[in-house]
Amino acid sequence: MKLPQFIVDDVILRALKEDMHYVDLSCAHLFTPEHESRAYLVANQAGVMCGGEIFARVFALLGEGVTCELKVRDGERFNCGDVLLELRGPTAMLLQGERTALNLLQHLTGVATATHALVEAVEGTGAAIADTRKTLPGLRALQKYAVTCGGGRNHRFNLSDAVMLKDNHVDACGSIERAVAQVRAGVGHMVKIEVETRNLDEVQQAYAAGADVIMLDNMTIEAMREAVSWLRGQPRAVIAEASGDITLANAREVAQTGVDVLSLGAVTHSVQAANISMRIVK
Amino acid sequence: MKLPQFIVDDVILRALKEDMHYVDLSCAHLFTPEHESRAYLVANQAGVMCGGEIFARVFALLGEGVTCELKVRDGERFNCGDVLLELRGPTAMLLQGERTALNLLQHLTGVATATHALVEAVEGTGAAIADTRKTLPGLRALQKYAVTCGGGRNHRFNLSDAVMLKDNHVDACGSIERAVAQVRAGVGHMVKIEVETRNLDEVQQAYAAGADVIMLDNMTIEAMREAVSWLRGQPRAVIAEASGDITLANAREVAQTGVDVLSLGAVTHSVQAANISMRIVK
Amino acid sequence: MKLPQFIVDDVILRALKEDMHYVDLSCAHLFTPEHESRAYLVANQAGVMCGGEIFARVFALLGEGVTCELKVRDGERFNCGDVLLELRGPTAMLLQGERTALNLLQHLTGVATATHALVEAVEGTGAAIADTRKTLPGLRALQKYAVTCGGGRNHRFNLSDAVMLKDNHVDACGSIERAVAQVRAGVGHMVKIEVETRNLDEVQQAYAAGADVIMLDNMTIEAMREAVSWLRGQPRAVIAEASGDITLANAREVAQTGVDVLSLGAVTHSVQAANISMRIVK
Amino acid sequence: MKLPQFIVDDVILRALKEDMHYVDLSCAHLFTPEHESRAYLVANQAGVMCGGEIFARVFALLGEGVTCELKVRDGERFNCGDVLLELRGPTAMLLQGERTALNLLQHLTGVATATHALVEAVEGTGAAIADTRKTLPGLRALQKYAVTCGGGRNHRFNLSDAVMLKDNHVDACGSIERAVAQVRAGVGHMVKIEVETRNLDEVQQAYAAGADVIMLDNMTIEAMREAVSWLRGQPRAVIAEASGDITLANAREVAQTGVDVLSLGAVTHSVQAANISMRIVK
Amino acid sequence: MKLPQFIVDDVILRALKEDMHYVDLSCAHLFTPEHESRAYLVANQAGVMCGGEIFARVFALLGEGVTCELKVRDGERFNCGDVLLELRGPTAMLLQGERTALNLLQHLTGVATATHALVEAVEGTGAAIADTRKTLPGLRALQKYAVTCGGGRNHRFNLSDAVMLKDNHVDACGSIERAVAQVRAGVGHMVKIEVETRNLDEVQQAYAAGADVIMLDNMTIEAMREAVSWLRGQPRAVIAEASGDITLANAREVAQTGVDVLSLGAVTHSVQAANISMRIVK
Amino acid sequence: MKLPQFIVDDVILRALKEDMHYVDLSCAHLFTPEHESRAYLVANQAGVMCGGEIFARVFALLGEGVTCELKVRDGERFNCGDVLLELRGPTAMLLQGERTALNLLQHLTGVATATHALVEAVEGTGAAIADTRKTLPGLRALQKYAVTCGGGRNHRFNLSDAVMLKDNHVDACGSIERAVAQVRAGVGHMVKIEVETRNLDEVQQAYAAGADVIMLDNMTIEAMREAVSWLRGQPRAVIAEASGDITLANAREVAQTGVDVLSLGAVTHSVQAANISMRIVK
Repeated sequence: MKLPQFIVDDVILRALKEDMHYVDLSCAHLFTPEHESRAYLVANQAGVMCGGEIFARVFALLGEGVTCELKVRDGERFNCGDVLLELRGPTAMLLQGERTALNLLQHLTGVATATHALVEAVEGTGAAIADTRKTLPGLRALQKYAVTCGGGRNHRFNLSDAVMLKDNHVDACGSIERAVAQVRAGVGHMVKIEVETRNLDEVQQAYAAGADVIMLDNMTIEAMREAVSWLRGQPRAVIAEASGDITLANAREVAQTGVDVLSLGAVTHSVQAANISMRIVK
Repeated sequence: MKLPQFIVDDVILRALKEDMHYVDLSCAHLFTPEHESRAYLVANQAGVMCGGEIFARVFALLGEGVTCELKVRDGERFNCGDVLLELRGPTAMLLQGERTALNLLQHLTGVATATHALVEAVEGTGAAIADTRKTLPGLRALQKYAVTCGGGRNHRFNLSDAVMLKDNHVDACGSIERAVAQVRAGVGHMVKIEVETRNLDEVQQAYAAGADVIMLDNMTIEAMREAVSWLRGQPRAVIAEASGDITLANAREVAQTGVDVLSLGAVTHSVQAANISMRIVK
Repeated sequence: MKLPQFIVDDVILRALKEDMHYVDLSCAHLFTPEHESRAYLVANQAGVMCGGEIFARVFALLGEGVTCELKVRDGERFNCGDVLLELRGPTAMLLQGERTALNLLQHLTGVATATHALVEAVEGTGAAIADTRKTLPGLRALQKYAVTCGGGRNHRFNLSDAVMLKDNHVDACGSIERAVAQVRAGVGHMVKIEVETRNLDEVQQAYAAGADVIMLDNMTIEAMREAVSWLRGQPRAVIAEASGDITLANAREVAQTGVDVLSLGAVTHSVQAANISMRIVK
Repeated sequence: MKLPQFIVDDVILRALKEDMHYVDLSCAHLFTPEHESRAYLVANQAGVMCGGEIFARVFALLGEGVTCELKVRDGERFNCGDVLLELRGPTAMLLQGERTALNLLQHLTGVATATHALVEAVEGTGAAIADTRKTLPGLRALQKYAVTCGGGRNHRFNLSDAVMLKDNHVDACGSIERAVAQVRAGVGHMVKIEVETRNLDEVQQAYAAGADVIMLDNMTIEAMREAVSWLRGQPRAVIAEASGDITLANAREVAQTGVDVLSLGAVTHSVQAANISMRIVK
Repeated sequence: MKLPQFIVDDVILRALKEDMHYVDLSCAHLFTPEHESRAYLVANQAGVMCGGEIFARVFALLGEGVTCELKVRDGERFNCGDVLLELRGPTAMLLQGERTALNLLQHLTGVATATHALVEAVEGTGAAIADTRKTLPGLRALQKYAVTCGGGRNHRFNLSDAVMLKDNHVDACGSIERAVAQVRAGVGHMVKIEVETRNLDEVQQAYAAGADVIMLDNMTIEAMREAVSWLRGQPRAVIAEASGDITLANAREVAQTGVDVLSLGAVTHSVQAANISMRIVK
Repeated sequence: MKLPQFIVDDVILRALKEDMHYVDLSCAHLFTPEHESRAYLVANQAGVMCGGEIFARVFALLGEGVTCELKVRDGERFNCGDVLLELRGPTAMLLQGERTALNLLQHLTGVATATHALVEAVEGTGAAIADTRKTLPGLRALQKYAVTCGGGRNHRFNLSDAVMLKDNHVDACGSIERAVAQVRAGVGHMVKIEVETRNLDEVQQAYAAGADVIMLDNMTIEAMREAVSWLRGQPRAVIAEASGDITLANAREVAQTGVDVLSLGAVTHSVQAANISMRIVK
């Protein structure tokens, strides 16, 4: 998978303008354009790579002159001490792009690495790990891409590509049945409808209403198991999604209830930046 | 302190467009514009507020109709269970703005809360907690604002407003002395120059070169104490900044070396979103 | 349904800047700001309204002073001679916004009216009329909104919210089965997959592969009837979509094959502007 | 004639972002970047080409890798069955750019083809076919370019480059004479002034007032002939423009009244997309 | 005349972002939002006002709270010591907007004042003073507006609204006659064509070719007089424009040659900012 | 020193769009893309170069085809008659970019040249010439760069990178001492604080308060000399900046008072465009 160039460029240019609204005062008076250096990225922890091409693109958008060689591709695992990327070019450009490029790479690799840990935790259960709309403003496309690099799956991208009916939506119509029917009558035929449920009764209502996906929201393990079991006994296949307080510690137990998907916001809203350094070779 | 409206608006509009590139499919077919609700924000943890006005602005940029009443101001502390904000307006608008507004508020309150924990940790030592340029792309102004809400101080905003000379910069000139002199001769008289040092010898060179701020980078507690002690014995007042692997666990010990400032990237690059919910009143 | 304000504003501001890159030379030297007029929109044909609020918004974005009263709401039918909207304000502003506002209104009402004619043509068959991605660059959200005002349904908005596998996609994998499986393994659980088919054999392959929607592309009426009949006999409900050379003339016949959806590009790529005039009252 | 690159790029990037706000879900999981294809554009109708370079530019803005060879230049005629353009490159890029590129090409070729039919209809009469400001929002520059490709001429681009005085403008001053005088005293010496007239009396007033161009608005053939005849007998050369309900059916008759220009909105506000397909070679 | 709000807003927002990429450090820690002040603009020189509403708009775009009362309208003359505008509102907002608002006002009033001096110099000759495309990047619309406030006239706005044929253009075709004919055959009927000439022979060629405007470029006073005299003797009225090294010192002499227009770049490319101060009342 | 490409590109693209919102009407119908020319820039006055690469970049952003060879680098002096730059490429592109490129070059070279005259005037005194925030909206980064090309120094870039306390700020707190203390407690440790003073008493207060820079605002030569003398006798080194009505005529006298910096707005707010022509070789 590859993000469109124009989406990546928008994010990078905004970041570069944020980091330099005039000149790089530190380099402006020290380096001639001819002063070149080599540098490399080294991992100070193990993880799953995300953002290598984006890192390289930062320097391309600064101007001509820097070449990058990716040693680890997005989605690949790396170990502590691994060299992830090598670059060379004018020293001033390396130093100007360094922080912006690292900020992106460390964040996205952090997302991919955290996602991957969850994916490993549920390995073999058949359940997938999915993200949410709990993303950092302006970074959603990049974060969702990072989730896929970590082996996760994307939930809906935004309010315009799929329907999620929560209790507030349901209350407006009086019942799950009527809410689903009303929405189905309005949205296009390519749109899936998910319904949030809190107990077996609501699960059964959502199934009867024709929901494509049923979210088991903040249910106990036991309640989820029961709900999944009931759903598996019905003629129509419906996707069961567990949500609410899912962590690395409980993910496997949740997955073993038989749900298809575990979705959680932490992989995008509470990201630990990956520990990666850029070292300039003297 | 108050961020300029146009900076906040840029971030919010980008976030809203990211979350709705067409319509909110879920609400479009359920609510009339006349269907109104009340809602409130409740804290599921203690913390330091940041983003209340930004939260309200999200709804203002969606259109007319939602009113917000702030119960806790930015920079104020709150406890688990506190109501932070109340709002009312068309139900569809509340649901459309909810995620974007919460994503901002939870992130910024996370930054302020983490910063504040560090500020408390060093209380009484005279040392300040400062941020870095290790911020999330596109969110720097908001994150730096959140740091101040948490009681922290801002390091330079970007490459254009202050000078930081690292070893790569120094190597280009041959010595700290020459690097500082060369930069001083080029930058304006309102610009401060900071020099990164790794040992007492470099601290002494940086002092002699006329650095305004000296960063003690990844030094041991003992080395920092010695450096600060030496600096305090000199006629010219210089700011000493500790940097490198500072955590909540070791911040007080570092502060007690006598440094003026502790700077760390974690408050902006590895943020735990604050646990805050928006509840719609039926 | 209501488009987000920021999407509408982007389109309008672009249009206004296109139509005035300096000043309105004709009005600049004729009218004082105090010179006011009343005006109204009159329909010179029957149709289905779309763009009333957008029309009014054009004047709001020009500055303060113009008030609009909508007489016909978006989605409502009007007859030749009906007054659709009344407005009053500074004459210079009325004349400056007139063309931009009418260009939008006439185009969108044209889309809604054409869509509605098709919707009427298939009335009672149970089939829906849907749009495509064959839209005019920069106007997709507005055009898709107009389709819904005309009683039509929206196909996927763009490449990011649903999957459509054409023969080129299939060829890359060797078979429909493998293509669907490969995509299903990669995309999120909220994404529907549609497969284009040209004959019963492909329809059967697409069904077996688990497609959510099957497009009957450029098939004869007879072939479509056979395909639908076969699909209705299967245990899993799949949406059947007819596509290719659908016109007002043949829509009912196509709908009577039992397909769920007829999709066609003409309602957005070949639009006849609705004949609506703005008349200024002396 | 060649549109500035930055104008074309703005339109294309907006269209691409509209069509992909995250990734192309269909291709993301099927094609490697190395999977290449060849494709060609074939005309399913005769027409006048417009948008060949714009079509190619869509792929250039997607990234590197696609090469296009134009077989028919903008402004040239083609027949049904002609190959208009050949392209090759990564299959995913071809499929991602296809719709956006075709939407532009089919629309612009539709404009050029419709314009050309009118130009042919008036051939030999000395009259020119001109467009209006009745264009589709955001596409004016491209549409006006397409009109010239079809052999038509451009009326004023917008409110800022020429003056058009309608009855509402005239009413504000009391008479055509005073309105023209007042405007002439205010606008620059490079600006032409056109006056809308409805009968010979107004034509004579407009001439006397010094109008550069006189629009004969919704006049009968006979009235236009009389007006032109009167104007041709005056010492000062004035351009006579026919406007109002001009169609392919009556264009020649209107042109034969001796007017210099026939202007009509249909070539830009009610465009039939040209029937052109992109076929990928297996 | 009034500039469109969206054009003014674009310039102001760009200026504000340029002047504050984070916060106003000076005010952030001194003033509460409740701290209000009154201030007024005082002229330290005589001049012609331009930018009063733009000045007020700067504060409106900063947020709510500042009210401005214009004492002198754009285009009106003021004397040294006159109060031009009064404002009141939050002190922090007054100080934040002051520089941006003054930078615009002083520049535009400088343009209007310089233009007006030239207009007065040629008073009674019948000649007009016009600007050129020698404007400051990003400020053309505002500068051209300021020229009109000073009593001057606008030459073409840009390359898209009128034709100017210089010797380089002529050389491409072989003769003035052919160049004008070729361009006339291509551009719309609302476009005027100006030809640059350097001597009477070229003036006569330009006249014969049908130029609407003839520029007498860098001719001597005598040569201009001769050219104008010849032109006045011809049956067709053509506008004569003097250009090249026109200053306040020689403008009247040039105007007395009988030319219709004197155009000069200095009023926009070499502007002396008007001396206007903003004083805050304690 | 080198401006970031993205800052330069923003200014240039805005200027190009301002100068061509559709096509270049003059060239569109005269030149084929194959028609090439050579041209060169010649100085009609002596000066200090600024904007050579920016000039070249204008043509790069117009499209491919023009090559530029810089004969004089930014910051270098040139004499009247010198060739500054040579270029060649498609004639239409040369003519389309000419005005925009020259507008930038002439303005920036004007800034550099005026700055340099002041730098020379104070040569040997040890004082520096600095700019202010009195810049032209949208052009600050380029103007500040030009000041450095002329040998000047940059004052703070904007409200976000340094503190300047004027009497209005001081009044809000009651005393210079309290104002400085309050700001120091709030801003980061990389921020310098300047205090405006009008007499020796205020200078002494500012010194005592710990100001980093003290502005001697509109003081007499004698008062400045006294203030500097007093400051030089203190243990802490403070920068003394003279401001207010500084001109080329009095700059040396002011500098000889011993101040470190003379700041003045005229180099950016009242710029005389450098007299440079582009000549196309036939």
